[in-house]
Amino acid sequence: MNQGQLIVLSGPSGVGKSTVVKALLQYKPKIQFSVSATTRPKRPDEEEGKSYFFVTREKFEEMLQEDALLEHAEYAGNYYGTPVAPLDKALAEGYDVLLDIEPQGALQIKAKRPDAIMIFLAAPSWQELRRRLTGRGDTPPDKIELRLQQARWEYTQATEYEYILISDEVEHVVKELLAILTAESCKVKNRISLLKEEL
Amino acid sequence: MNQGQLIVLSGPSGVGKSTVVKALLQYKPKIQFSVSATTRPKRPDEEEGKSYFFVTREKFEEMLQEDALLEHAEYAGNYYGTPVAPLDKALAEGYDVLLDIEPQGALQIKAKRPDAIMIFLAAPSWQELRRRLTGRGDTPPDKIELRLQQARWEYTQATEYEYILISDEVEHVVKELLAILTAESCKVKNRISLLKEEL
Repeated sequence: MNQGQLIVLSGPSGVGKSTVVKALLQYKPKIQFSVSATTRPKRPDEEEGKSYFFVTREKFEEMLQEDALLEHAEYAGNYYGTPVAPLDKALAEGYDVLLDIEPQGALQIKAKRPDAIMIFLAAPSWQELRRRLTGRGDTPPDKIELRLQQARWEYTQATEYEYILISDEVEHVVKELLAILTAESCKVKNRISLLKEEL
Repeated sequence: MNQGQLIVLSGPSGVGKSTVVKALLQYKPKIQFSVSATTRPKRPDEEEGKSYFFVTREKFEEMLQEDALLEHAEYAGNYYGTPVAPLDKALAEGYDVLLDIEPQGALQIKAKRPDAIMIFLAAPSWQELRRRLTGRGDTPPDKIELRLQQARWEYTQATEYEYILISDEVEHVVKELLAILTAESCKVKNRISLLKEEL
């Protein structure tokens, strides 16, 4: 069985990453969503162990010390990190694994896993990003300005990625994302073994 | 307007390249099929200026001297080559241009146009390649052996390509080819300008 592919979907806070992930999972069953650990408070619509593993700062720092995280970042005062063990297990079982993470963490993944498929999700416009951050209703105005500043830096890092998707209509984004996954599975490194059997 | 993408579809003789191209053109209107020049005799189902430009050896060698060909190859005793002018015109107009060529020529393209999307079309099996070559009915048995030998060498060159497609069901091949074109259009180099406008 082929090893699965590691897909990193990143982009500024508020751009719509989790909306895209949710829509994608309806189309492609052989994909797993990497669940992050975080110290930030649970939002009402979130589920423990599904949206995130919600942990204390103490527990998070313990995981760091045990090298149990593939990447981690501190963002808006909270820790976020990717537990490595479940991710590697799913890849070994042939599942594609999708990581939905902030750009700080995404670049750490790229350094550790150069084969990861790096996708940057950008807003259709700056105004629209502001509108989405405001509309979510969980971020006070001064933090919105902080996140927009952060987003400006993140946009300058987009050249570190392989693909850019524009977060307009979610169905359109998912269609392009599925095309990327199909195209990546056609890459020579994933198919050359089929030809070698024939020679 | 964005420059179009140059797509090179190659693979052994008889593998089904032109069948795939024909099916693809029904799906994707904004693509042009590069018409090669050749000195080989026209087959009954072929059309001058559409399947190939059928030219004399003398005319072909004149084109070579005028540097009017992006690549050329001698294959089974005949010349094949790609006129460069119509290709560059179509790319500049924003059309994707698809080249259906023998592997000798494909590798020349890769050297001259490193941005070309290189796709290798392989047969589902060796037996199937032999069957297709025989079934076409235009190749004498001794030439079939020669082409299979050639194909064996061509398979060893597949690592020079970016993608491998397996020529089983034509609709499946076309679906993967369309996914590759979509994915390539999402590459950072093709989209970064959209983000720069926002910064």
